[in-house]
Formats: sequence, C-alpha cells, structure tokens
Amino acid sequence: MLSTTPRTTLGRKKHRAVTDRSALHAVLDEGLICHLGIVRDGAPLVLPTGYGRDGDTLYLHGSTGASSLRTASRDLDVCVTVTLLDGIVYSRSVNNHSMNYRSAVIFGKAKPVVDPEAKMHGLKVLTDHLAPGSWEHAREVNAKEFAAVSVLSLDLAEASVKVRAEGPDDEPEDLDADAAWAGVLPVRTVFGTPEPSTDLSPGWQVPAHVTGRE
Amino acid sequence: MLSTTPRTTLGRKKHRAVTDRSALHAVLDEGLICHLGIVRDGAPLVLPTGYGRDGDTLYLHGSTGASSLRTASRDLDVCVTVTLLDGIVYSRSVNNHSMNYRSAVIFGKAKPVVDPEAKMHGLKVLTDHLAPGSWEHAREVNAKEFAAVSVLSLDLAEASVKVRAEGPDDEPEDLDADAAWAGVLPVRTVFGTPEPSTDLSPGWQVPAHVTGRE
Repeated sequence: MLSTTPRTTLGRKKHRAVTDRSALHAVLDEGLICHLGIVRDGAPLVLPTGYGRDGDTLYLHGSTGASSLRTASRDLDVCVTVTLLDGIVYSRSVNNHSMNYRSAVIFGKAKPVVDPEAKMHGLKVLTDHLAPGSWEHAREVNAKEFAAVSVLSLDLAEASVKVRAEGPDDEPEDLDADAAWAGVLPVRTVFGTPEPSTDLSPGWQVPAHVTGRE
Repeated sequence: MLSTTPRTTLGRKKHRAVTDRSALHAVLDEGLICHLGIVRDGAPLVLPTGYGRDGDTLYLHGSTGASSLRTASRDLDVCVTVTLLDGIVYSRSVNNHSMNYRSAVIFGKAKPVVDPEAKMHGLKVLTDHLAPGSWEHAREVNAKEFAAVSVLSLDLAEASVKVRAEGPDDEPEDLDADAAWAGVLPVRTVFGTPEPSTDLSPGWQVPAHVTGRE
C-alpha cells in the first residue's frame, strides 16, 4: 500500500486516488521523463529530467540543469511528478471537459549516491530506463565520466497515484438535451522510425534493442 | 526576446537556450499539459494541469488538486514547465545518451482572474487549448459552473526555452572505435481513433473538430 501522509491524501476527487504500490510502479515504468520540483531561494523550480526505478528507489541524474541539485551539500526536498496523458475527454458541456491520465507524485529527500558500486548501479538503472539494452550495447562509463556524473536517489516511501480512465461525466440535463458529441480522443506516446546518426559508418543495422522498443 | 533574469539564464549547456519569444509560444501551443510547481509548507509540490495561452498570458485552471491554489488569497509564486519529448538519443557511449526535447520554464506570480469577462475569456482560452472547437460545439458554461470554477493567469514575462534537436554527440575515440550503433529514436505524441461515449445516442457522427485534430 502507498503511504497516507497528509500531503499524499488527495484533497479533492478522492475517487481518483489509487493506493496500491504496483500502480505507482507501473506509472513510473511507463513514463520517460519526470518533472522534478525543488525550492530555490524560496521559489519553486520545476525541471524535466530522466529517471529510473529499481524496486522502491527512484534514481535521478544530478546534473539536470539546476545548480541547486549539483551543489546540494545536504539532502534536498524534492517533489517528483510523472504524468501519462491518455486521452482528451469531450463532454456535452464545456465545463465537464477533462483529460484521462495517470500521474504519480513523490515527495522526499533526494540523496546523492556516493558509494561507487551503488552509483554505478544507479547509472545502469537510469540507462535501462532511458534506453533499454544500451548498457550492454554501448561503450561503458569510464573513470573520468563516472567521476563527473552525479546520481541522486529518492525513496518511493511517500507517494500518491491519481488516475482518470473513463468516459465523459455529463449532467443529466445535458444527456437529455443530446445537443453535443461526447467521447474520448485517445492520446498516446509512440516511437517513430529510428534515424541513424549521420556520422554512422556504413554497414550498421539498427540493433534489436532499438527497433524492438515499444 | 525572452527575459534574461538570473533564474532564466541557463547555468549549463547554454547553447541549448533559445531566446526568441516565438519559440516559447510554439512549445506552449504544442504541449497539452504543464507541470505546475508551488511551494507548500516550505516544500515543493508539482502537479500536472491543463493550460492555455493567449498572447503573453498563460491561463491555468485554479482547481488543480492543490488546495494551496484554491485558497490562495494573494498571488502565488509558481513555476510552470511544459516539456515536449522528441526523441531518445542513442550514443556510442552510455554516458552520452540523451534526449531530444523542447521545454519551456516560466516563473511568475499566478493571479486569480476575478473580472467576469476576463474570467470567461480565460475559460475559452483553456477550452480552445484542451479541445479546439468545443467552445462552439458543447453546451456553454452556466452561471453555477462559472461561479464554482477558478482561473489563474500568469504573465509570460520571465521564461526560458531549452531545445535539444540533434543527433548523438560522441567522443572522437568512440567514433574511431565504431563499436556501437548511434542515432535517434523519435518520440511523438499522437491522437488515436475517437471513442464515442457509451451513453451517446445513436446517429451521432464524430464531429470534424475531433476527427480533424492533429
């Protein structure tokens, strides 16, 4: 079960809350980027960044463009949000238009991963999420690169998942009036045809871990 | 030109910064949801929400699940981020793997839109973004709905845009080694086939503003 701290208990539309941990894992595993929120000089800052999950640990690249992250000498309060948009909900009234989505919101303290073995594991988890198969296919991280990169970890202890996955929710009078179309326009994220690098030497075929990605 | 306050000046990968206002508008117009960051009890909170743009004003639904937004008696410091993921960049080394993306980060104070005419305009802008054509097709907002909804506005005065739109950036030694495939796997957001509501009366065809959406 997911935690029920005050800030993970939904204040409205409680019926959209999903409280099993497998739902959290599923949203995180399907998403490609997260939005990482921190407080900088008292103001919010939200940056997109890659991530990866292993069990109930989320790994984040420490070099996300926020100097606050890179220079954090102590653990940093973060909110990490992953949103999967599944559809646009067209209702019979403008007011009931909505979106179908699955979102995960995680609160916690992001900690720099210092131990070399744990850090290398974090890099593998990040790579496996961004580009499954690349850890085995591409050139491994060398000592210089390893020293330059930073990895943060975040426990998935305090998290909430919210899901809307249904058709329009119209008012009885709008159903009676029957004056507008209602339904869902699905939204999906898809991969296109791989584009080999212009400097790739002849003879390379696109490897299976790229062509087979879904 | 976009502003160059300290917090919109990129601390790293400066070459990814795009400084013309049309690039900001293009990212905002193509995105479907934003991630809205606020500070609540000193900690960051990031929530997905719909938005719409008119000129250099961004409109947000005030009822996004964050009670902090609904009860804000004064202007609220926010960071709004919209990210379009365009591709996974497979490099010859694990370390140079990356993503192609376009992202916009906006800082400012979200203000409740109180004037009825301005608020109705904000609702139209939000609807036009979420579901173009629905403002004309669906039943208009009635007085009760209008009173219950809240709209926030945010000036696009302080914003930055970051773009990566290129192939792998590999090390010379990895190019020489020629030991891994390199290229980009495009990522796109697409609409599927419209799914009429199960309670839709027979005879309705999917209207053009839904079928024609791209």
